[in-house]
Amino acid sequence: MKVIGFEQPFQLSEGNLFKTYALDIPKPKAHELLVKIQSISVNPVDTKQRLTEVSKVPRVLGFDAVGYVESVGSDVRMFEEGDIVYYSGSPDQNGSNATYQIIDERLVAKAPQNISFEQAASLPLTGITASETLFDVFGISHNPEDNKGKSLLIINGAGGVGSIATQIAKAYGLHVITTASRDETIHWTKDMGADIVLNHQEDLVKQFKAQGIELVDYVFCTFDTDMYYDTMIELVKPRGHIATIVAFQNKQDLNALKPKSLTFSHEFMFARPLNQTDDMIRHHEYLEDITKKIEQHVYKPTTTRVIEGLTADNLYQAHQILESNSMIGKLVIRLTQ
Amino acid sequence: MKVIGFEQPFQLSEGNLFKTYALDIPKPKAHELLVKIQSISVNPVDTKQRLTEVSKVPRVLGFDAVGYVESVGSDVRMFEEGDIVYYSGSPDQNGSNATYQIIDERLVAKAPQNISFEQAASLPLTGITASETLFDVFGISHNPEDNKGKSLLIINGAGGVGSIATQIAKAYGLHVITTASRDETIHWTKDMGADIVLNHQEDLVKQFKAQGIELVDYVFCTFDTDMYYDTMIELVKPRGHIATIVAFQNKQDLNALKPKSLTFSHEFMFARPLNQTDDMIRHHEYLEDITKKIEQHVYKPTTTRVIEGLTADNLYQAHQILESNSMIGKLVIRLTQ
Repeated sequence: MKVIGFEQPFQLSEGNLFKTYALDIPKPKAHELLVKIQSISVNPVDTKQRLTEVSKVPRVLGFDAVGYVESVGSDVRMFEEGDIVYYSGSPDQNGSNATYQIIDERLVAKAPQNISFEQAASLPLTGITASETLFDVFGISHNPEDNKGKSLLIINGAGGVGSIATQIAKAYGLHVITTASRDETIHWTKDMGADIVLNHQEDLVKQFKAQGIELVDYVFCTFDTDMYYDTMIELVKPRGHIATIVAFQNKQDLNALKPKSLTFSHEFMFARPLNQTDDMIRHHEYLEDITKKIEQHVYKPTTTRVIEGLTADNLYQAHQILESNSMIGKLVIRLTQ
Repeated sequence: MKVIGFEQPFQLSEGNLFKTYALDIPKPKAHELLVKIQSISVNPVDTKQRLTEVSKVPRVLGFDAVGYVESVGSDVRMFEEGDIVYYSGSPDQNGSNATYQIIDERLVAKAPQNISFEQAASLPLTGITASETLFDVFGISHNPEDNKGKSLLIINGAGGVGSIATQIAKAYGLHVITTASRDETIHWTKDMGADIVLNHQEDLVKQFKAQGIELVDYVFCTFDTDMYYDTMIELVKPRGHIATIVAFQNKQDLNALKPKSLTFSHEFMFARPLNQTDDMIRHHEYLEDITKKIEQHVYKPTTTRVIEGLTADNLYQAHQILESNSMIGKLVIRLTQ
């Protein structure tokens, strides 16, 4: 099988250090699947993981895949050969920048039947991240009626996670305010379901006041947590909840949470697989719900750009696009051989 | 009426700047009660508030009281003249270091009928703080069956908040590990219901390992959050929840929450009354539950020391004792005139 990997952490400015490797196709263990990959997507986390220490050569990134189940481990009960599945995975395993991949069945669900492989590849990592943030972190109800009257501010609504988070939050009854700044991102986030779109190039607190927007129950930061730390604290209700998926550059004053008795979470979707938690199967469950909602036309996939062919050059190009911080929705690579 | 107050922030080392003042007895507005106070307690928050700017002279502290309802505002429906009530209050109002006090009825409950005023005075501030931390912050269930298998580490189990938090957590089904270091505090926290007591003078991580204790779902810090920040992160489960009631001295690295996808809350029980939130009545509800549990002999009051007479000297002495950080349970002042 073919994988695209690298041997040491590298900056894109050093040139393209991705290489193509030929590896033996691995065999799935008890609760694992072997998947023949059809499409993958590239996420900001790939660009961050590219910079971390390499403990096994080649390091194979890639945290979104859709493909066919080629074979199953002896204890697998949820899937069988030929199933079309999708999943995100875990950074301590070989990733999806490959023609075949081994994956724990608890992290996998059947892909929606009404959309293409390229569309489905946009959903696992962002969908699981958004679901964990809404259901596990904020603790919103699985019954939309219970969430009526609750409000969510998403910093950067048009990114990959923001796009699906907006859709899930709306489907589960929340009032959703997002931020964007360009005409095309404003249009996109409205299309995802945002009730109100604010301009994150301008003062958000002033925009809340000018438009008479009430403080929100939840804030979800998907871009530059340092920059928005104070703003998020100002815009959330007393006893509200702030979550981020973006690591900080600097230490922060946690006492700023005290006057309103606030809660802060660092959402990290790989915490479950990396720690092999008892409830890893949540990833399967969240993906199952997303499949259902896609098939019911409640959610739309978020793929906006497809690159043809998994090659070292295409992967390098994809990382360049991700690092430009200008992506709307998701970038997918379609495997052509 | 008599109040004990002061005119400027002061350190105890400057001498006793508490003074006795004679003020007119105020009249309760629509949803307020006028309470004739019988006993008060003194909390660490009094010593912290004593150091903050004085906007109105005299500043009257005191955030725990039990007494008789003397008169009620026109819209009060929950209480009537003669009721024995208890409450904590809010730092933007005149406090309980007084013979009479005005208090919003949503912050008040009837006091337990089976314990003395001095015993009851130990409960409001610590009981509300512990209840908010367990039910609002950690989100534990009000049905103890649902909490079975969940575990809580309380840093400093023998303090005022730790003592009642241990009792509430146990009554609601949690497994509770506390910390203490002296024979008398170890004995006290066990008596409050702690399942395991660790020594916070020694390495908690090593004690967890040596005793084969599993990582906990929740950590509640009631002493020196800076000192325990890294330890709490190490001892909590992936996707676990840490809360503190003690402000930080230093900025902290919030990225430390990321690998296990953790949540951190700064519990502050005055957030509701200070922000006049729609759900201020939670304080009434939490106190009602504590009254019920005391009357059912499920909880014990935590008063360990009673000083006779509300005087400037006695209040100064009480602040000295609190600042020594050696209190077990709670210090109460009984009003003698």
